Amino acid sequence: MAKDKADIKRMIGELKALDTDRMYLNDFFHTWKESDDEIAAVFKVAEILRGLRENNISAKVFDSGLGISIFRDNSTRTRFSFASACNLLGLEVQDLDEKVSQIAHGETVRETANMVSFMADVIGIRDDMYIGKGHTYMKTVADAVDQGYKDGILEQRPTLVNLQCDIDHPTQSMADMLHVINYFGGVENLKGKKIAMTWAYSPSYGKPLSVPQGIIGLFTRFGMDVVLAHPEGYDVMGDVEEIAAANAKKSGGSYRKVSSMEEAFKDADIVYPKSWAPFAVMEERTKLVGEGRFDELKDLEKRCLENNAKFKDWTCTEELMKTTKDGKALYMHCLPADITGLSCKEGEVDESVFSRYLDPLYKEASFKPYIIAAMIFLAKFKDPSSKLQSLLDEAKPRIK
Amino acid sequence: MAKDKADIKRMIGELKALDTDRMYLNDFFHTWKESDDEIAAVFKVAEILRGLRENNISAKVFDSGLGISIFRDNSTRTRFSFASACNLLGLEVQDLDEKVSQIAHGETVRETANMVSFMADVIGIRDDMYIGKGHTYMKTVADAVDQGYKDGILEQRPTLVNLQCDIDHPTQSMADMLHVINYFGGVENLKGKKIAMTWAYSPSYGKPLSVPQGIIGLFTRFGMDVVLAHPEGYDVMGDVEEIAAANAKKSGGSYRKVSSMEEAFKDADIVYPKSWAPFAVMEERTKLVGEGRFDELKDLEKRCLENNAKFKDWTCTEELMKTTKDGKALYMHCLPADITGLSCKEGEVDESVFSRYLDPLYKEASFKPYIIAAMIFLAKFKDPSSKLQSLLDEAKPRIK
Amino acid sequence: MAKDKADIKRMIGELKALDTDRMYLNDFFHTWKESDDEIAAVFKVAEILRGLRENNISAKVFDSGLGISIFRDNSTRTRFSFASACNLLGLEVQDLDEKVSQIAHGETVRETANMVSFMADVIGIRDDMYIGKGHTYMKTVADAVDQGYKDGILEQRPTLVNLQCDIDHPTQSMADMLHVINYFGGVENLKGKKIAMTWAYSPSYGKPLSVPQGIIGLFTRFGMDVVLAHPEGYDVMGDVEEIAAANAKKSGGSYRKVSSMEEAFKDADIVYPKSWAPFAVMEERTKLVGEGRFDELKDLEKRCLENNAKFKDWTCTEELMKTTKDGKALYMHCLPADITGLSCKEGEVDESVFSRYLDPLYKEASFKPYIIAAMIFLAKFKDPSSKLQSLLDEAKPRIK
Repeated sequence: MAKDKADIKRMIGELKALDTDRMYLNDFFHTWKESDDEIAAVFKVAEILRGLRENNISAKVFDSGLGISIFRDNSTRTRFSFASACNLLGLEVQDLDEKVSQIAHGETVRETANMVSFMADVIGIRDDMYIGKGHTYMKTVADAVDQGYKDGILEQRPTLVNLQCDIDHPTQSMADMLHVINYFGGVENLKGKKIAMTWAYSPSYGKPLSVPQGIIGLFTRFGMDVVLAHPEGYDVMGDVEEIAAANAKKSGGSYRKVSSMEEAFKDADIVYPKSWAPFAVMEERTKLVGEGRFDELKDLEKRCLENNAKFKDWTCTEELMKTTKDGKALYMHCLPADITGLSCKEGEVDESVFSRYLDPLYKEASFKPYIIAAMIFLAKFKDPSSKLQSLLDEAKPRIK
Repeated sequence: MAKDKADIKRMIGELKALDTDRMYLNDFFHTWKESDDEIAAVFKVAEILRGLRENNISAKVFDSGLGISIFRDNSTRTRFSFASACNLLGLEVQDLDEKVSQIAHGETVRETANMVSFMADVIGIRDDMYIGKGHTYMKTVADAVDQGYKDGILEQRPTLVNLQCDIDHPTQSMADMLHVINYFGGVENLKGKKIAMTWAYSPSYGKPLSVPQGIIGLFTRFGMDVVLAHPEGYDVMGDVEEIAAANAKKSGGSYRKVSSMEEAFKDADIVYPKSWAPFAVMEERTKLVGEGRFDELKDLEKRCLENNAKFKDWTCTEELMKTTKDGKALYMHCLPADITGLSCKEGEVDESVFSRYLDPLYKEASFKPYIIAAMIFLAKFKDPSSKLQSLLDEAKPRIK
Repeated sequence: MAKDKADIKRMIGELKALDTDRMYLNDFFHTWKESDDEIAAVFKVAEILRGLRENNISAKVFDSGLGISIFRDNSTRTRFSFASACNLLGLEVQDLDEKVSQIAHGETVRETANMVSFMADVIGIRDDMYIGKGHTYMKTVADAVDQGYKDGILEQRPTLVNLQCDIDHPTQSMADMLHVINYFGGVENLKGKKIAMTWAYSPSYGKPLSVPQGIIGLFTRFGMDVVLAHPEGYDVMGDVEEIAAANAKKSGGSYRKVSSMEEAFKDADIVYPKSWAPFAVMEERTKLVGEGRFDELKDLEKRCLENNAKFKDWTCTEELMKTTKDGKALYMHCLPADITGLSCKEGEVDESVFSRYLDPLYKEASFKPYIIAAMIFLAKFKDPSSKLQSLLDEAKPRIK
């Protein structure tokens, strides 16, 4: 499965054909803001970087420089993916712990963004908990450092990488898609494949919507039959659904909403059952937090959990899996999953299903560091294919 | 504004003329313990390192090695400045979180200092909250590792960089001064320029004195007209005032104390309005904390805030700014500032004044990483100009 | 004392003669699981790496890569030793703070281990507080990443280094032994030397047993006269005692247990007086914690401290030191020690004794970063002597 140098050379050639000019010195917010060439380039660069590493070739393009991480929500896997990506390219991670200034005024954000960025080449932010907040915060940071760069305060323009906002989770959805591309042996094999992105029951509350939104916003670009299923009231953002529909139309695929897991799973090639909170609940929550109405917040949580509990039958069972294409759909999850009988009494998926897919699930996750590294790479080099070719030619060993 | 290679070459030549021998394998505690040549060398090396980076030339002189940071008080901008400086030179930051051993016995400090320093090339410490403690602690650490080096326990002598103590804040005052030098187009243009270092009202309590002390202790060395103003009872340390007076005499400038912002601001070229706690309050506070008398501490805070509130008219208004030289004095602050109507109801400065100076303020802060890197550099290389020349000649790219 | 290049060359030659094949792509759990050649190789590589650094020669064999640290117990010196070792070899430390998942299910451990290891070359773990837990946890992590590597999920196999478990503390005992080897001028001089590993009183409770176990499990391999002494009820694990006895038999030394410090110290060449909790108490504690019986835990602590207090005369006094070989036994401790009259009222050792041995104690600790680096090195290179020789030949400076 590992690529050899000839494969890498070929992929660099393919990258050359893609127009990535607009990515240079730019940020990565949502996949749907990127052109098809740009999306393809991220996949290509990710695969090339992986190929280089597999061949023990250094991809350290930075001699020094910082990668700033801001996690406004707990994170282990995204934290390590970002750290791995930065390290691969030669950047040192410095974490900015600014929980205390969560509700900080815009002007303060601008100041802090500049203060930490004098030697920063990239800023990775995760801020996914509050509807209408995460993306706005990221935009404020990105605008601040862009202005700082233009005003001559920053000697370089730090690139912002969205490590999950309230709207999209592009490093997740793109790692997921690269996994799918590899699993099915190429992007050309995805046309007509059915993916079921479905809600699933979880005993926890308030899981972000950006994963299902990221999936329907990206997977609809590849001619696939994308089906979203959730109980009544668990709608995702309408804007993203519109994007998904438009994508599907353009790519020759389809986007549909159905009202049961059964219908979604039927003959699916891929299933992605995962819990999320209803958009309306997340909106109310954001409002209550913003106004400091914490008593009502507890009440909201209670109501939300009670409502969730009505849909415990939305769970990925062996029986459901049997109804998928040849009973062998690819099971996907962003992890960690709520596994019935293992991590909780009743959850998103049967233990036996989950266990059978451990290797593919870990493989799925393994693409994330490379996706992040590719996003950084494409923002930093005007001619990425030449730069990658010179890394391949130089062939400096990662381990001596 | 960015330097080209010829500028860098010229600056290296100027550095060569300065005597920096005593800085080699030494520490940086207070600016007034350094000779004029040594102070000039820090500025020169800082500018050269900045020039190299602007020209995408690596200044990574360390292949491996640690930079230990000890922050005994919260910090964002100094933390990132230190991290940036270490990264620029090739050192990896390791933070020692020893809040728990705050009141640790001297012997324990000695032990810990050695234990963390086996591969440490620099130790940066911020300990500014307790009068008579911060500097003492730093000295204990520096003596410990110096002894460890002499006894053959440490293979290298870690350099101590004072990231703010109870007496001086040299990385701040020197970044401030380098900003001023650049702003006025050269150190030769500073003679006779008036700077107003004044107290200003803040709704918070117990801000360290090391900033105003650092400013009057350093700026008086450049033939400037340095004016300190504060309400009655807000005196800074007498020792530092004596140093300021002696500096002024030697440099052909002046050091004066006046009793109003109005008098200080009149025709000033530079204004630096900033809050601090009275020395006597800080002394009492240190005593109470040391003796665990926390109830009285709360009372002290209350009294101090009440006293502060008597001087709410000590604030940098548009009206005051108009009285400065041509109404256009350079406004300075170490950040974050308490901005009236933005970050607080009544604070150190009007929002409109602050907003007008955003770019210069950020620029001011941008010198700190380079000042810190210069301090490290001068402690590590016996012949700094040759080393910098070889970096320039080698011209290894920071970004490939 | 520092080695020159000829010394290093000679040591590389000696390393060549040792069989280290089994260490390649393997983990380091307990010293007694390693062959004599393997133990000797760790010492040799540690000394060579130290020699390289003393000669300002870079040992950076990794161009990029992460070193994951997991500290399930507080740590300063081991944390910095691990960070130093990783940095020396070119790995960047990323700390995984998973206190929250302390009692996590095995499957979760497996998942997390893989998720953080996509670009990890080494995982260092400290988990020493719970009998029967620490080693088990490490083994679960090591098995998980080994499986991940075999399944093609991880591109490299992260090596696990035991930074202290409930059974052994190999980086401590090996640093201690390398100190002893240097102190006595060579491993060949250790035959017949008497070491007293004794319990000592401390006002704190629940210190791990892995230090005394590590010492008797390792020092018995060198033909030494190893004597363990502790009050009744403070037994260490029987399994480790059996290993010590077998080691002693094989190496031509001896392993004995005596019931007083006096008997142990008599004519000893080395003394290692140190507190630990009784094995039975640690077992009960693990049980109570596991079952969430925290009230009983407090009671256990109280009883344990009361019992400790019966043995306050188990302390390393000047009088006792006089009874050792020529009154000049080498005093050892893993630090920090409980020093009578300095860090506590009554503790493990007299202040005057401790103070006299400061330099040797710090020297003892200074070997740990190199021991850890050697363990990593031997797991990563199939032909370590060739790799070290090429580092010596290349002679890339650590500081330019």
